[in-house]
Order: sequence, then C-alpha cells, then structure tokens
Amino acid sequence: MARQERAVRTRDAILVAAAEVFDEVGYESAAISQILRRAGVTKGALYFHFASKKELAQAVLANQVTAVPEVPPRELALQQGLDESLVIAHMLSTGDAMVRGSVRLTVDQGSRLDGLDRRVPMSGWIERNVAFLGRAQRNGELLPDVDIGAAAQLFVGCFTGVQMLSKIMTNYADLTARVTTMQAHLMASIAVPAVLVRLDISHDRAERVYKEALAARDGTPAVAVDASG
Amino acid sequence: MARQERAVRTRDAILVAAAEVFDEVGYESAAISQILRRAGVTKGALYFHFASKKELAQAVLANQVTAVPEVPPRELALQQGLDESLVIAHMLSTGDAMVRGSVRLTVDQGSRLDGLDRRVPMSGWIERNVAFLGRAQRNGELLPDVDIGAAAQLFVGCFTGVQMLSKIMTNYADLTARVTTMQAHLMASIAVPAVLVRLDISHDRAERVYKEALAARDGTPAVAVDASG
Repeated sequence: MARQERAVRTRDAILVAAAEVFDEVGYESAAISQILRRAGVTKGALYFHFASKKELAQAVLANQVTAVPEVPPRELALQQGLDESLVIAHMLSTGDAMVRGSVRLTVDQGSRLDGLDRRVPMSGWIERNVAFLGRAQRNGELLPDVDIGAAAQLFVGCFTGVQMLSKIMTNYADLTARVTTMQAHLMASIAVPAVLVRLDISHDRAERVYKEALAARDGTPAVAVDASG
Repeated sequence: MARQERAVRTRDAILVAAAEVFDEVGYESAAISQILRRAGVTKGALYFHFASKKELAQAVLANQVTAVPEVPPRELALQQGLDESLVIAHMLSTGDAMVRGSVRLTVDQGSRLDGLDRRVPMSGWIERNVAFLGRAQRNGELLPDVDIGAAAQLFVGCFTGVQMLSKIMTNYADLTARVTTMQAHLMASIAVPAVLVRLDISHDRAERVYKEALAARDGTPAVAVDASG
C-alpha cells in the first residue's frame, strides 16, 4: 500500500471513530483517548491529521453531506429530492456512524464557546435542495408561486426536526415512515397535480434507493429504482 | 406573603434560573451552584423543592408546554394551531428563558446515561396538535384523507427542526418568518381551499397573538386578533 493511500485510510478510520464517539457521548464529553482506542491509531497519527478535537469535529461536520451517496438523476427532479431524504433516513435508522455522529454534532447546541460551525452541513443540505428544486422548477414540476430558497430551507428544517422527533420517540425505528409522511405533505404544497400523482412516496423505497445510490457512487452494478421514469 | 405562596415563588425562581443556565451551557455542564447564584436561593431551599439536577431538568422539561400561553379559541381551528406556533416562535426569538432552556434540554441529545425523558414535552405538543387538528376535522376544515395523528407528529417535528435551523443560521432572528413559511406549506397540504384562503399566515401576527394569549391567561384586557372570525 502506497504511503499516501495509507494516510488516507488512517484519516478515514480516525474520522469514523470520532463520529462514533461524538454520536455516543456528544462533543464536550468526547475524549481524544477514546477516539484513538476506537480507531486503533497512535496519538502522533491523529495529531498529524487533526490539530485538535475541534478540528476533528469540524471535519466530521464537513463530511456529513458527502457521506450520503447522491441519488442518480430521476426524470422527475422532485422524485430525486424525495429519494435523497429517504437515503439519509435509511442511513440514520441503520446506524451509519458518520451520518449519526455528524447529525448529533449539528443539532446539539454545545457550549456557546465550543466554536464549532454548525452552519457547514446545513448549508450543504440547503444547496442540494436548491439544486433539485431549481431543476423541478425548470421542468415545470412546481406550482407557480413556489419560492425555491425558502422551500429549500423549509425542507432541511423539517427533515432535521422529523429525524430528531423520531430519535426521541422511537430511537429512529419509525424514521422512514415519518419521512414519507413529511414528503407527502411537503410535495403536496409545491408540486403540480400531474407530477404529484407520479411521485413514489412509499416507505419501502428507502433501502432500495440507498443501495442504488451506493452502487452508483462505487461504480458497482445495481437495479435502477426510478419509478417515475 | 403566606408561606405557601413564598414557596411557589421560590420554586418558580429556581426553575427560571435553571432554564437560563440549561439554555446557556446545556444539561451536562450546568452546575447547581450556578443555578443557586442566579436564583438567589440557598442550597437548602433548592433541595427542598428538587432532589437533584436531573429532577430540576425534568421539571423544566415538564414546564415547556405550560410556559406557552394558550391562544384563545378561533373560529377556524387551523388558525388556532397556526397562532400557537407563532406564539412559541415569538417567545423563542425574544429570549423567553423557560421556553429556550427547555427546548435546548429537549433537542440536545445528552449522554445516553443522563436519564432525562425528552418525550415529555414532545408528547405535550403532539397532544395540543391532535386537539386542534381534531377540531379542524370536525369543522370540515381538513381535506378528506388527512391522518390527524400523523399530521400532529409531523407539525411538531417540523417546528422542532425549523426553530433549530433558525437558531443555527441566524440565532432566531428569522424564526417567525421561517415559521410562517412552514405554516403556509403545511396548511396547503391539509386545509380545504375555502379555509386556506381565510387563514392569516402573516409574519407580523406573532407579537400581537402572543400578547393576546398572555392577556387571556392572566385575565387582563387585550385586543382580539382573530382574523378568521
């Protein structure tokens, strides 16, 4: 294994271990020693990649959006946005360490002095939403008066709270069901009727779409699940 | 002042001080000594009312729903639900200690071992939403296929996330605007058109409705603001 490749693997192992620890105990209680043990690396290796716990947490936050594989383009842009939320829901409910750890870092308010910039992942999600809503608008999928920017912020806000409520009430057991309910309501408020009836908002779509997105990212074959195409 | 009344005031002062400290530093970092100083009470007085920090936090959580004054009944039940969310938004954005502190306790995930039951305030909000949605259904305000229970959970989830995103992005400066956007979308997904056009979802309603709800609770006169009546 080349030195550079080894360095990338070490960095990734540290990030995953850090995300796990942040998920379990939160930012303030997380100890570097715990992350070292979990990752199986030396202190020197960790500090080679990250100068501090704060830098490590900020890297986990920055990884939140990229840790979620992108859904292949759908004929209906709204189906793509919907499917992206199902992928995140699936990853949260099945315990993906990076997504869970970074979501906890994002929503825990932390000490006002911890200096973490929680806007980073939120801005990433808002951008992804602006992108699919913009495409939906150009395709004529949206009702005439939809404000793309406001709707993108709303979708991100709603998803954030719906996942949190699912975590509090059922430790994510009902997350995909809650997300499909959310999508049914939000889509009804922005989509033209002819598009709305073509959207597949079914609950059992989550796992299939996740596998498809993962295969598309990793370049392995998978069955396409675009219902709207 | 009678002894009992003094005890109630002391208990309230402790709860408000605790909510402030929880809002500022979170549950784990909050120190009893800090709460004592803030409330201006002795350790003995605090422990007379609350056996532990956990009991104090659980009392703040239990106070979350009751700290928000109820909106007087509206002709349209959906206007009442909408107005209730505006009242909470107004209290969060103007820095009401009890609401802010208990919301932080609710959304911070905490250590898995802290033992706080964050379902308490969430269940309270869900009940309030089931109540106004049920009334809306009996009044014929809702589209035929609305599932009251699922919609109530969705409304609470969306509000939770929208307030969180507003906190992260603008420290609540744009909260009422975000909540009116949310209401415009959610109401469009459940209300019959004839009701939808009568709802007042304007942003500057928040402060007026808050004052009205407060006056109704405290028995002082105020101007009614039911636009739909």
